[in-house]
Amino acid sequence: MAAKPISRFPVPGLADLPEDIRERILKVQEKSGFVPNVFLALAHRPDEFRAFFAYHDALMEKPGRLTKAEREMIVVATSAANQCLYCVIAHGAILRIRAKNPLLADQVATNFRKADLTPRQRAMLDFALQVATRSSEVDEPDFATLEAVGFSRDDIWDIAAIAAFFAMSNRLANVMSIPPNDEFYALGRG
Amino acid sequence: MAAKPISRFPVPGLADLPEDIRERILKVQEKSGFVPNVFLALAHRPDEFRAFFAYHDALMEKPGRLTKAEREMIVVATSAANQCLYCVIAHGAILRIRAKNPLLADQVATNFRKADLTPRQRAMLDFALQVATRSSEVDEPDFATLEAVGFSRDDIWDIAAIAAFFAMSNRLANVMSIPPNDEFYALGRG
Amino acid sequence: MAAKPISRFPVPGLADLPEDIRERILKVQEKSGFVPNVFLALAHRPDEFRAFFAYHDALMEKPGRLTKAEREMIVVATSAANQCLYCVIAHGAILRIRAKNPLLADQVATNFRKADLTPRQRAMLDFALQVATRSSEVDEPDFATLEAVGFSRDDIWDIAAIAAFFAMSNRLANVMSIPPNDEFYALGRG
Amino acid sequence: MAAKPISRFPVPGLADLPEDIRERILKVQEKSGFVPNVFLALAHRPDEFRAFFAYHDALMEKPGRLTKAEREMIVVATSAANQCLYCVIAHGAILRIRAKNPLLADQVATNFRKADLTPRQRAMLDFALQVATRSSEVDEPDFATLEAVGFSRDDIWDIAAIAAFFAMSNRLANVMSIPPNDEFYALGRG
Amino acid sequence: MAAKPISRFPVPGLADLPEDIRERILKVQEKSGFVPNVFLALAHRPDEFRAFFAYHDALMEKPGRLTKAEREMIVVATSAANQCLYCVIAHGAILRIRAKNPLLADQVATNFRKADLTPRQRAMLDFALQVATRSSEVDEPDFATLEAVGFSRDDIWDIAAIAAFFAMSNRLANVMSIPPNDEFYALGRG
Amino acid sequence: MAAKPISRFPVPGLADLPEDIRERILKVQEKSGFVPNVFLALAHRPDEFRAFFAYHDALMEKPGRLTKAEREMIVVATSAANQCLYCVIAHGAILRIRAKNPLLADQVATNFRKADLTPRQRAMLDFALQVATRSSEVDEPDFATLEAVGFSRDDIWDIAAIAAFFAMSNRLANVMSIPPNDEFYALGRG
Repeated sequence: MAAKPISRFPVPGLADLPEDIRERILKVQEKSGFVPNVFLALAHRPDEFRAFFAYHDALMEKPGRLTKAEREMIVVATSAANQCLYCVIAHGAILRIRAKNPLLADQVATNFRKADLTPRQRAMLDFALQVATRSSEVDEPDFATLEAVGFSRDDIWDIAAIAAFFAMSNRLANVMSIPPNDEFYALGRG
Repeated sequence: MAAKPISRFPVPGLADLPEDIRERILKVQEKSGFVPNVFLALAHRPDEFRAFFAYHDALMEKPGRLTKAEREMIVVATSAANQCLYCVIAHGAILRIRAKNPLLADQVATNFRKADLTPRQRAMLDFALQVATRSSEVDEPDFATLEAVGFSRDDIWDIAAIAAFFAMSNRLANVMSIPPNDEFYALGRG
Repeated sequence: MAAKPISRFPVPGLADLPEDIRERILKVQEKSGFVPNVFLALAHRPDEFRAFFAYHDALMEKPGRLTKAEREMIVVATSAANQCLYCVIAHGAILRIRAKNPLLADQVATNFRKADLTPRQRAMLDFALQVATRSSEVDEPDFATLEAVGFSRDDIWDIAAIAAFFAMSNRLANVMSIPPNDEFYALGRG
Repeated sequence: MAAKPISRFPVPGLADLPEDIRERILKVQEKSGFVPNVFLALAHRPDEFRAFFAYHDALMEKPGRLTKAEREMIVVATSAANQCLYCVIAHGAILRIRAKNPLLADQVATNFRKADLTPRQRAMLDFALQVATRSSEVDEPDFATLEAVGFSRDDIWDIAAIAAFFAMSNRLANVMSIPPNDEFYALGRG
Repeated sequence: MAAKPISRFPVPGLADLPEDIRERILKVQEKSGFVPNVFLALAHRPDEFRAFFAYHDALMEKPGRLTKAEREMIVVATSAANQCLYCVIAHGAILRIRAKNPLLADQVATNFRKADLTPRQRAMLDFALQVATRSSEVDEPDFATLEAVGFSRDDIWDIAAIAAFFAMSNRLANVMSIPPNDEFYALGRG
Repeated sequence: MAAKPISRFPVPGLADLPEDIRERILKVQEKSGFVPNVFLALAHRPDEFRAFFAYHDALMEKPGRLTKAEREMIVVATSAANQCLYCVIAHGAILRIRAKNPLLADQVATNFRKADLTPRQRAMLDFALQVATRSSEVDEPDFATLEAVGFSRDDIWDIAAIAAFFAMSNRLANVMSIPPNDEFYALGRG
């Protein structure tokens, strides 16, 4: 089968990109060994690219009490609910690496209720899924449930904001039909 | 009834904000006559605030073939599907003003199929709702339908990206439980 | 845009109506200053018209422990769930007037969980929505919940009957595609 | 098992009823050999009783191009979608009698797509179910589909109004928990 | 109307069947007085026929603490949720016979929450429906609920396995469009 | 974390099993290098075990026009819709091996619409999902769609029967909470 296009929309060449975006892309390429397709697909719109990754980094890279692996669990569980191929595969790889667990991502993507999680992580994903699929019903008892297993208000903001950011991201990747890079499927499995 | 809080999370005072955020807030206050609650609620996290509004402006303020009123139609229709009180009321007001139509926002929020829309706008909202609620099923025939009524690929990106951004925004406002400022309910009705 | 038709079905002229129906319509016109479109649309079938309004009045005009405003809350919340433009806009206006609150109708229509309601009113709308969308699951514990916040069996009948009557009314207005009169959008806002 | 109550609400004795309601009930008893429970349950509220049966008769007893059996098909199919035990069993009996077909009611209640229907009747029930479950989406193409198999606008009103009336009736019977009289289960089967 | 075919797929004649299958069919014919259509429809594939009925008998005919009538309740309730005409009608007949109750099957098929059941049977059907429609959410609290009303782990296996087997059976009968034999509709009613 | 149990129900030791079942298990162990957990979990009920695997083999091992890989695509796609961890992971491994494609299983599990499939395979999975989730709506046009891309009636039986068999299998594995063997996650990945 011929190579699938990276997006349903025009994809810029690296040489045509604004300097800051090209640099960010080269940096991720250096680190990962390949350019994740979402970078090229979103680069069609430089201003949106910049805002997207600034937001992403503010949620996923900042210090905080959720571990990096826990943040990726939220991404994988909610992206699976939205059937976003790109996000499930790419962030599944990152989850395997961050959790140093080759099995967890597939468990969380298929049915997080059966995954090897702590009760605190299970409550975190129950809430993340509620934000992803029925946010209009979130109410104080949901906060109380999370606080009872040790989450602070700021932790709850983090869970909700990651679920919300990927609600956006999943919709973009689904409409653009961005395929995950082949490399992601195998990363962190060995 | 006592004044409802602006958010379920801490809300900073204007004096405590970074300079750029305070300036943005004062500017919107000068223009609108009041500070929309979402600005204060999101200011609890300055980096996320900056990314949120940079993204917002890149989609809602940039030149493009969708009119400003049409962009607000997308916001109101998808926010209603997500039952986001803040976004329906605040962007309903903006839609009334931008469309110079005091009735349209309530129509779009309640049942966009009954609203006074052109066939092109109806197709736009059909697609926006699909992105909001079933993005995993978007496929080439959906693009063909939009192109048949005159939308370009870049217009389709705009529709999808606005629907996706407010998928995020609705979830944040629902979890934070941000009430719309009272002023929004009446704006643009006269 | 040209005036939208009042119904997908034939609409009688006032002069062609049976005397009792014409009188009822003239009376509502005198009181409101205009003829709500639902009266003209339903008058195509005089017997159904008479039964509809007899039922309506038996539920909405009779004495009882639910306030007139509370009855309208039930109408607006369930009509919003059924996406009935006519009922949300027309009864939203009545709710604003009856509750002397210009904001409440839009809150109840968009997400009643975020509306400025007493716990008793919140329980009332939770139940009304259950009747509107999952009546087959109503059971004794639902009655107990309502009784715990002070509703009598007869109050519960009222809540259920109003939700049921507008389940019918919403379906009729949706199929007939009755547009709300322009006057309703602004009533009670100022 | 002890006799189940006829309603979750108070049930009046025949002697306590207004004359017109008692007469109506005695008339149905004379005709059927028993008093259908819905009459006694609704008689708790005489004004609502009168409006309910006036509306019922205006739809179900009036002349028109839908046969009496076809009207009952609409009742049974939509009541099954609403899981209303009383209406499925009672109107299933009437459908068997009116259609002179001992099998049809169970087919229509379980899966109308598998019932022995003409294409015109199948289109009628497809539309009735749409009115029952997604009336906000009804639009001109649905009317065109019905007109293509021979229904007039007034026939469509009949289908929609019957589906809408039983949307109300099902919700009332579900909340009241009215059991069907034992007699209904066997009627018309022989 | 002409006789409906027994299946959307080829139906073998008795004479063309392998000996063991013909014998099983003749035996059921002798016992019931007619050949249930599912036997002929499935006989198109002898190996699948054999496995299907071996599985069926292992669940429905074996000794165990669920009564034969209770097993049929599970079949009827879950088949109704799947709108399987064949299974609801055929197993409805068997339920009437096994329970010696001419009303129960129609109650369970229409809305099991309104059926004349013991609390233990109600819990059994609540769980069976969960297995039929949301098995991915089954968790330890569901087991605890069943154990609290007296079910053992092996009873729970029985409930789940019957619901699961008919999840398969309903899908087969729906795709094949197997009509129930006319005889089933009346069996056990008198 | 301690080893998770293989089932919520008792799991027999190999030594305690009937000879035929022990032999079948030893044979699969010899071939795969490990005993898939579903064999041990189901062996708690020898008669059901025998029927289950007889049925499985009749569908999955028999000659036919669907390739072995295509059959596994049906299993993975429908098991993902049912969120069955065991089946998605175990049959995902088999799909990778049968299709000699390390990426396909994850694609089919996450969103089969984005998988690298031929149009014929896409139609196959569209139908399999319909059988899995809305079998009551299957009708002649669905058969025509499949026949238009080259499937015979017997191919359609195969698709439907595999989807139906795993509707059962998914529910069993979900209720038993059978974890996939760790080996499955990595099999066939390269």
